Amino acid sequence: MLIRHLAIIGVGLIGGSLARALKRARACRRIIGYGLHESELMKARALGAIDDFSIDLGQAVKGADMVVIAVPLGAMEKVLSQLRWCLDKATVVTDVGSVKGSVVEQARRLLGPHLSRFVPGHPIAGTEKSGVEASFAELFDRRRAILTPLEETEISAIQNVRDMWEAAGSEVEIMDVARHDEVVAATSHLPHILAYTLVETLAEMERAGAVFRYAAGGFADCTRIASSNPEMWRDITFANREALLTALERFRQELSALTESIRSQDTRQVLETFRRAKGARDAFTWK
Amino acid sequence: MLIRHLAIIGVGLIGGSLARALKRARACRRIIGYGLHESELMKARALGAIDDFSIDLGQAVKGADMVVIAVPLGAMEKVLSQLRWCLDKATVVTDVGSVKGSVVEQARRLLGPHLSRFVPGHPIAGTEKSGVEASFAELFDRRRAILTPLEETEISAIQNVRDMWEAAGSEVEIMDVARHDEVVAATSHLPHILAYTLVETLAEMERAGAVFRYAAGGFADCTRIASSNPEMWRDITFANREALLTALERFRQELSALTESIRSQDTRQVLETFRRAKGARDAFTWK
Repeated sequence: MLIRHLAIIGVGLIGGSLARALKRARACRRIIGYGLHESELMKARALGAIDDFSIDLGQAVKGADMVVIAVPLGAMEKVLSQLRWCLDKATVVTDVGSVKGSVVEQARRLLGPHLSRFVPGHPIAGTEKSGVEASFAELFDRRRAILTPLEETEISAIQNVRDMWEAAGSEVEIMDVARHDEVVAATSHLPHILAYTLVETLAEMERAGAVFRYAAGGFADCTRIASSNPEMWRDITFANREALLTALERFRQELSALTESIRSQDTRQVLETFRRAKGARDAFTWK
Repeated sequence: MLIRHLAIIGVGLIGGSLARALKRARACRRIIGYGLHESELMKARALGAIDDFSIDLGQAVKGADMVVIAVPLGAMEKVLSQLRWCLDKATVVTDVGSVKGSVVEQARRLLGPHLSRFVPGHPIAGTEKSGVEASFAELFDRRRAILTPLEETEISAIQNVRDMWEAAGSEVEIMDVARHDEVVAATSHLPHILAYTLVETLAEMERAGAVFRYAAGGFADCTRIASSNPEMWRDITFANREALLTALERFRQELSALTESIRSQDTRQVLETFRRAKGARDAFTWK
């Protein structure tokens, strides 16, 4: 058995899916959930994602060999500050936050002696839905899980967390914290901001007359992620503010150049841009 | 029988799907395809989309009660100029071009006495694929088909084209030419430009190290339409240049405002924008 006692802090889409994936792999003897809302935890137990739960953090993590923090970024600081006082000495801790710089800063400040067994992590998977009802065991299959260990992180802790994600179906990669945040700013956070902005642009036009009803599949696909949880994305936006602003500035420059080519009727330049983009998109093997 | 002899000029994704939808509805006695490449037309016939074909435009449209021009916008002018000399007096003509202002201007200039039986049209449906192999009978089911008739268009011609699209599964709407072009600039052409630009932005970053491999579902959805045919989208871009530049400017302003809110750490404003966009996106019932 890979993990005897796993505690999942926050049993939503990600925490619930991880629990289900590990149950599918028979990788845990016992999974205990912790959360603020007993009703949600009861749902998670009824769905079979967790074996039991506690609304007392100390109870939930007592004797755990692994603790996974799967709360929104905005709740991370509070959980980290409380965990310090109830973790066992040998417990390995990891998180699933989609920004790593801010989490690492908080962990350094708050985890005290447990810092060396904290392995910052980020499974690159999700949907626009939230909550344990939206969770499913296959969410992480063949997706990347990125770990961004610190200099002081124990090798054995990294290995434990790697084993867990591999059991859940993921391909694990180790990456530098800053590099991780730069990559997700471009590949995930930027597209979310663009989707929100595109919907906002059409919503402005809608005031002068129907627009949305004429939208088709391309628009629907492009803006699906604008249905994501606004509070969660506010927190991600500000947790990764610097890297996101850099990605936004890059996008702004590309858009400005393409707009100028359209304005000046530079048909060749526009065609070249479209061709290059199609080439890059077609080469992107989405698995 | 709705249509005795239908001629489809350009049997690709749209022309082929229309043929299949009308065959499914048993709405045509005979469908003749016309195109530049005999091999493509043979494919279309082998797939059962058309009954026969000709690579002579005059032959293809001779005796037709309805002619549907389903060529890319860039080929529209040539087809219209040739059609004038081979159309029967009673033949109704329509097109599927995704920009209407440029097509109407060409039709006025080139169709001569046939202009009053020309009904500019645009089925709002498609995929990122091209060619008759990608066609399917269900493409237009419950999608809107917009007609933008001119002042001189005969009522009976409008009714014939409306009946055809309804038989193909569409919901038909009549719209003003300029309004149509403004709406599709925002709902379709703008998202395509953004998708191309997003891929281009990441492709630039990719030179300094892997980026695409860390992209997930949100990015894949957002950029699917960047795989669309570059030549076709160059033509659409310039055919609808004015309306597209207006939509791009609206988007630029929204993005600039949101970027400024992020830069100045205005968390409340950012949250409000995300909430408003989620509300609008969730209300958009994608059928």
